Amino acid sequence: MDLLRERIRREGKILGNGILKVDSLINHQVDPDLMDACGVEFAHQFGNVQATRILTAEISGIAPALMAGLHMRIPVVYARKTRPVTMPDTVYLTIAPSHTKGHMVELIVSPEYLQHDERVLIIDDFLATGATIQGLVRLAQAAGASVVGIGTLVEKTFEGGRESLAYLGVPIVSLVKISSLDNNTITFTD
Amino acid sequence: MDLLRERIRREGKILGNGILKVDSLINHQVDPDLMDACGVEFAHQFGNVQATRILTAEISGIAPALMAGLHMRIPVVYARKTRPVTMPDTVYLTIAPSHTKGHMVELIVSPEYLQHDERVLIIDDFLATGATIQGLVRLAQAAGASVVGIGTLVEKTFEGGRESLAYLGVPIVSLVKISSLDNNTITFTD
Repeated sequence: MDLLRERIRREGKILGNGILKVDSLINHQVDPDLMDACGVEFAHQFGNVQATRILTAEISGIAPALMAGLHMRIPVVYARKTRPVTMPDTVYLTIAPSHTKGHMVELIVSPEYLQHDERVLIIDDFLATGATIQGLVRLAQAAGASVVGIGTLVEKTFEGGRESLAYLGVPIVSLVKISSLDNNTITFTD
Repeated sequence: MDLLRERIRREGKILGNGILKVDSLINHQVDPDLMDACGVEFAHQFGNVQATRILTAEISGIAPALMAGLHMRIPVVYARKTRPVTMPDTVYLTIAPSHTKGHMVELIVSPEYLQHDERVLIIDDFLATGATIQGLVRLAQAAGASVVGIGTLVEKTFEGGRESLAYLGVPIVSLVKISSLDNNTITFTD
């Protein structure tokens, strides 16, 4: 995904502790055209997994998940991190460590929108340690749904997330892979 | 916007205390096709305000803002409610009461993505009391930017938000207007 890689190359900032700031295009400001192109690419990559639903986590997963859902023509559910008053009393809830917040967060999905016969495609902004995505997998499994694929905009291959998810035996697609942030340099890899 | 009104008529649930649950299409599950149609309509309605940027608030504003941005071909910035580690030390911050959370929340925007020469279109999911949108207006004003329009998916006209924003003298567009949730009935209005 050359377009995304070039934008990250130009605009990404390395903040130390393995944190890559891409607030100008993903995490605070969002470029809708770029995100739309990412949605097209996700739809292409996951064209044959017969997903019926996309699952992501608020907040930064919403934009890529929405654009993937647009081009795959399937609904998107975003796990909430706090339980809104509109949610029923009984929900699927798991906890996962937040990479950028430094503490555990809850991930909550209403059983109304995640059911046992669903084929779930998980989409998120980053694949780092995989902890958030593992949480989304647990929510899908709690609902009795099948996870059929995992897609992220950016993978930091040096954090081991892909290996931690390999046991699922599903396609894992990252549009851009970064193998190192050492020496204040973003090193991309295929 | 007949499409959105019909979906709300069919799927909206009245929870009491003026709260309308639309978790099946906006606030937890999102229908990308519907949101795309809303983006087209926002682009049509605000075709002549020469907006250079869309400002919204996480979380539920992101989907409609992104689709409006896609069809207007302008970037989207979503105000954060907690300051992530990637944000600079000096930010624009205001507080606003959250309708569904029952307490005050912070709205935070980095000066990197909201500058004094911007023409800002504010997009959000709901216009109720207008408190969140007032917060977004304060952020835009703090940056020295001009607010040129306000668009929401759903307006609850009985909560007075439109009147509280009238002083701005900019177009306020709601794709669906609800005048009452009394008697367990959603009453739509033009």
